[in-house]
Amino acid sequence: MEFDLIEVIRARVDVARGDVALGIGDDAALLNVPAGQQLVACTDTLVAGVHFPVGTAPEDIGWKALAVNLSDLAAMSAQPVWALLALTLPDADAAFVECFAEGFAELARAHGVALAGGDTTQGPLAVTVTALGFVPHGLALTRGGARVGDALFVTGTLGDAAGALRVLRESGENGVELRARLDRPEPRIAAGLALRGIASACIDVSDGLLADLGHICASSKVGAEIEVDALPVSPALAASFDAKTCRDLALSGGDDYELCFTAPSAREKEIVETLARIGCGATRIGRIVAGSRVRALDASGSEIEIARAGWEHFSP
Amino acid sequence: MEFDLIEVIRARVDVARGDVALGIGDDAALLNVPAGQQLVACTDTLVAGVHFPVGTAPEDIGWKALAVNLSDLAAMSAQPVWALLALTLPDADAAFVECFAEGFAELARAHGVALAGGDTTQGPLAVTVTALGFVPHGLALTRGGARVGDALFVTGTLGDAAGALRVLRESGENGVELRARLDRPEPRIAAGLALRGIASACIDVSDGLLADLGHICASSKVGAEIEVDALPVSPALAASFDAKTCRDLALSGGDDYELCFTAPSAREKEIVETLARIGCGATRIGRIVAGSRVRALDASGSEIEIARAGWEHFSP
Repeated sequence: MEFDLIEVIRARVDVARGDVALGIGDDAALLNVPAGQQLVACTDTLVAGVHFPVGTAPEDIGWKALAVNLSDLAAMSAQPVWALLALTLPDADAAFVECFAEGFAELARAHGVALAGGDTTQGPLAVTVTALGFVPHGLALTRGGARVGDALFVTGTLGDAAGALRVLRESGENGVELRARLDRPEPRIAAGLALRGIASACIDVSDGLLADLGHICASSKVGAEIEVDALPVSPALAASFDAKTCRDLALSGGDDYELCFTAPSAREKEIVETLARIGCGATRIGRIVAGSRVRALDASGSEIEIARAGWEHFSP
Repeated sequence: MEFDLIEVIRARVDVARGDVALGIGDDAALLNVPAGQQLVACTDTLVAGVHFPVGTAPEDIGWKALAVNLSDLAAMSAQPVWALLALTLPDADAAFVECFAEGFAELARAHGVALAGGDTTQGPLAVTVTALGFVPHGLALTRGGARVGDALFVTGTLGDAAGALRVLRESGENGVELRARLDRPEPRIAAGLALRGIASACIDVSDGLLADLGHICASSKVGAEIEVDALPVSPALAASFDAKTCRDLALSGGDDYELCFTAPSAREKEIVETLARIGCGATRIGRIVAGSRVRALDASGSEIEIARAGWEHFSP
């Protein structure tokens, strides 16, 4: 008798949606996409020891596996709707799966995401989630719309997740606040929706600000200047590291899942106020310029050399 | 500079579709679902050494990762449209990825499937594909529609993939024909579409006939009787094993990706002729009965004991 782990997950991820005509339990799910909406789809894998520290609580792995995908939807200004989950684990550890499902479910409930399909397999611990969402036709934010003269913004604070990893590596300890940013990133869904019609380009900061802003610049065929003194860092990060380290973590650290976006300079006040109303900080951190490079500038306008341009898989 | 493996894959999986408004290269894909169609979604993971033998050619892994998902769409009578690919591999082996992408692309081209999204990560070799397709509202085949008195059918032949594994395990050799069934399963898309409006229930045979027919019975709240002498086996399988072993492999072997379906008994001739026109064999192998058990019967009508009920992950 198969030990039906996907049933364990389904029982806990209990968001019901009328647009799921047929959910888990057949060969595939049947889903109803409303007229006028585009389907927004992304997939991301988390591998143990690569995307989360070995020993991360299963609840946190479940949360994060969904969060990193919802963050991609947020960057497109999409409303999350459904997820499919492929969980690979070394053995049929029901307690692990229950805790994993609880963390996944907690975030799914917060955003009304129904689990539409799943697969459990035996192998080294890894999770792949596919997230599906809606955006009205033509209203998605992309990486490609930044224009010279646009102001550059970021939500929340940067560098916390990378700071948590550095604390863990250097001291073996978990800073509570920083570690929460690493383990339980909050996808900026509400901010992404609020920026629809306002932002000209948007990306989520998963690989680090410099790397991800570089993607906006490449897609939009522009350059960018970051004023490093404007970079928002949390009190917890500032209390843990000197100013230069905070700056480097904010520029290059991955896994923050904030939104980096561009918008006409004149809309700065509107943006800050709009996001403040949904409890989301927004900071202007620079500008879009002609060219193709991303440059980080100090208070005097001099370019700063950055050692490492973000989190990159398969880096040499 | 990131070694952009997903670009290597995108360049090779070159199916273009007008309904992909924005493909690989942003945070998520933007996809257009036509009015009147339901979205059909499934996800399946292949892990090295679990779902394919270590040493399987990367082309075959790429083909199979898509095939097992298209097979799930076939069982729903869905037309495949898009796929998302999450590839985890131990190192940035461009040659491996190119070959993998070629195999994936070969099958994607055959069915007009566009690669809409992807993720490459570092870790133990595994592939998760999410396949998306369309079915007109209300016309999907499910596991739940079998009725007492229905005839039971299977496409093609059964047991070849499990036979290939047994040959490999017992002799270390690869029987060419059997191994092709294991490495390059042909998802029965055309058959699934042809069975729309004809079949009452359908599932793909991934875990073995007994196990998968058991899913139809559970969903439909019926039992089933299989006439083992009617089970279709290939000449290659018959040449490799004695009759009893062939029978056991056909009953319990997984990974064949044929369709097992039920339909009113009176439609047998129409079904066989309809599928023959698209080059797909179909064999009546039994019937749906009252109850909840799946029984395998010999020519005298006596029940046969089966040692192992199919391929099951995490079996004790």
